Amino acid sequence: MKRVVGAGLMVLATAVPLRAQDPLPSWNNDAPAKRAITQFVAKVTHSGGPEYVPYPERVAVFDNDGTLSAEQPMYFQLFFVLDRIKAMAPQHPEWKTTEPFKSVLAGDTKGVAASGEKGLMELMAATHSGMTTDEFSKIVNDWITTARHPKTQRLYTEMVYQPMLELLAYLRANGFKTYIVSGGGQEFMRPWAEKVYGIPPEQVIGSHGELKFEMRDGKPVLIKEAKVALVDDKAGKPVGIQRFIGRRPVFAFGNSDGDQQMLEWTAGGAGPRFAGLVHHTDAAREFAYDKPSQIGQLDTALTEAKAKGWTVVDMKKDWKTVYPSAR
Amino acid sequence: MKRVVGAGLMVLATAVPLRAQDPLPSWNNDAPAKRAITQFVAKVTHSGGPEYVPYPERVAVFDNDGTLSAEQPMYFQLFFVLDRIKAMAPQHPEWKTTEPFKSVLAGDTKGVAASGEKGLMELMAATHSGMTTDEFSKIVNDWITTARHPKTQRLYTEMVYQPMLELLAYLRANGFKTYIVSGGGQEFMRPWAEKVYGIPPEQVIGSHGELKFEMRDGKPVLIKEAKVALVDDKAGKPVGIQRFIGRRPVFAFGNSDGDQQMLEWTAGGAGPRFAGLVHHTDAAREFAYDKPSQIGQLDTALTEAKAKGWTVVDMKKDWKTVYPSAR
Repeated sequence: MKRVVGAGLMVLATAVPLRAQDPLPSWNNDAPAKRAITQFVAKVTHSGGPEYVPYPERVAVFDNDGTLSAEQPMYFQLFFVLDRIKAMAPQHPEWKTTEPFKSVLAGDTKGVAASGEKGLMELMAATHSGMTTDEFSKIVNDWITTARHPKTQRLYTEMVYQPMLELLAYLRANGFKTYIVSGGGQEFMRPWAEKVYGIPPEQVIGSHGELKFEMRDGKPVLIKEAKVALVDDKAGKPVGIQRFIGRRPVFAFGNSDGDQQMLEWTAGGAGPRFAGLVHHTDAAREFAYDKPSQIGQLDTALTEAKAKGWTVVDMKKDWKTVYPSAR
Repeated sequence: MKRVVGAGLMVLATAVPLRAQDPLPSWNNDAPAKRAITQFVAKVTHSGGPEYVPYPERVAVFDNDGTLSAEQPMYFQLFFVLDRIKAMAPQHPEWKTTEPFKSVLAGDTKGVAASGEKGLMELMAATHSGMTTDEFSKIVNDWITTARHPKTQRLYTEMVYQPMLELLAYLRANGFKTYIVSGGGQEFMRPWAEKVYGIPPEQVIGSHGELKFEMRDGKPVLIKEAKVALVDDKAGKPVGIQRFIGRRPVFAFGNSDGDQQMLEWTAGGAGPRFAGLVHHTDAAREFAYDKPSQIGQLDTALTEAKAKGWTVVDMKKDWKTVYPSAR
C-alpha cells in the first residue's frame, strides 16, 4: 500500500503546481496585488477550508482590451477595421467620395472621429458583415498574423501582458475555467484567443451581431449580419456572463469603467470573491492613462475599487515585465 | 516500480471505460444505430487514424425535448407554465376574466389553444419574466423536484431516456464535450441539467430572453425581461451553436424538424460527422408520433435523414429500456 500511496502522490504532483516554483514570476514579490491573488487562490482551493470553492464554481472572467492586452492608442479591432477598409476599397469606388470611408482612405482621423458613432457603425457593418463566419475567421487570422502595431512594431498578439498570461495559467492550474468577457467582437477574438491565451472559442464572450443560417450551393453557412445582438460592455457584461456561463464568477479582472458592472456582479455573490483592476501607470513601458482617456477610461470603477477594497494593479510598480519576450 | 505501474493502471481504469464492458447496455446489440455510434466513436478517437478528431473538436450537441427526454403530450415547460399560472393566480384576480389566463385557470385547453401564439407569449411573459435570474432558478427547481407527469406520474426528470444517458456518458468518456441545444428555455433547463444529464449550465444552450442588470437594495441583480433574445429552434440552432460554442459540432442528435438545420450544420462540415434522429415508434413504452404531430413533428428531417444516410433510432426496436429505473 505504501508504494500505491506514493504513486498517488506522484499523480497528484503533476496536477498541483509546486509551492517552491513561483507561478507568477513576472509579478514583483512585494506587490500587494500578487499577494491578494495568491492568498485568494490558496483559500478557495484549500479542501476542507471555510472558503473552499468546488471546481465547477471556479469561474474566472477577464476583460480583454487593456486587461490582457494593450489597447492604445486605440482598440486593436479598430486598426483591423481601418486596414480592412483600405484593403476592400478597390471593390468600392464609391467610398472615395462617401464618409466615413473617404476620411479613412485619406488617413484623416479627425474626419473619421467627426462621423461619430453612426460612422463607426457603418465602418463596422462594412467590415464585419456580409460574409460567412468561416470567411470572417480567415480574414481575421490573415490580419492578426501579419499586421503590426504602429508604435511598437510588434504583432498585436505580442502586446499581451506577460503577467496576465501567467495569471491565466496559474488559475487554470488551480482548477479555474478562464473566460474572456470583452466589449470587443467575439468573432474577432476567437480565431487567436486559444493560441495566445489558452482560452478556447467557447470561453470567449464578446459583443456580437446576428447570424443567418442559409444553404449556399447546397452547403450550410452562417452569414454575419449588420444587426447587433449583444453589446458586451458595461451592464451588458453581467448579461453576457449569465447568458453564456449561467454561473456567477468568483474571480474577475478588468481595467476600465466598462468592466465596473462585471466586477460588481462578481463581487456581489456570496462567499469568497476576487475583483481586480489593471491600472495603466507605465508610460515608459506601456501607456499611462485613466480618468481622462477616451479609450479604456478608468474613473468610477477606480473609486468603487478603493471603496470596496478591490485589488488594483499598479502596472509600473507591480509588473517586472509587460510584454512577453520574443516567442 | 511494478507497484507504481499497477497504481497507474488503477488510476487509468477509472478514467477509461473497459473494452469488455458494454458502454451502451440499454441499446440492443443488433441495432444499426448502436453500431453506427460505436463505429463513429472508435474511428474519431483512433489516434493516428485517418479520421482522428483532436479533443477540442469533439463537440457533441443534443436537442432536449424528444431527444434526451419525453415531450408528450406537450413540452414539459408548458406544464410548468400552466402550473405557474395557477400558483400565481391569487396575486392576479384580473386573470379570472382575461384570456388566455381565464382558460388556463378553467382547465380549458381548447381555449388556451385558441389564444394562439400571442396567447402563448403572454403566458410565457407572465411566468418567465419580471423576476431575478436567481429567483427564477429557484422557482424552476421547486417545480421540477415535485411536479409529476399526468400520464406516468413520474417526476419529469425521471422521463429522460436511459439509452441517451448512456450515450452522453459514453461520449464524455471518449473526450467529447456534450451540449444541449434546445428550443426550450435555457434558464428553464440549467437548474437541473447538470444533475440529470451531467451537462453543466455553460453547456446548456436554449431559447432565452433579454436580461437587465440592476442594483436592488445595493445588490446587483439580473432581471428577466419579456423580450425574446434568441429562439434556439430550426435555423436558430446553428446560430446558437456558433454564438455559444464557436466550433462546428462533429456529433448531433435530434428528433424533429426543429433539429434539421442543426443536423445539416453538423453534417455539412469536413471530416467525419455523425447526425442522428430519435424516431418515436413506441406507443406502448413511450409515445408514437412523427409526421402529423403538433409537438415534435418529424417529417422533412426524416426524409433528409434517409437521403443522406443519417442514423435513425427506432425506439421500439433499438432500445431495451426507455426510462431509467427508479433512482
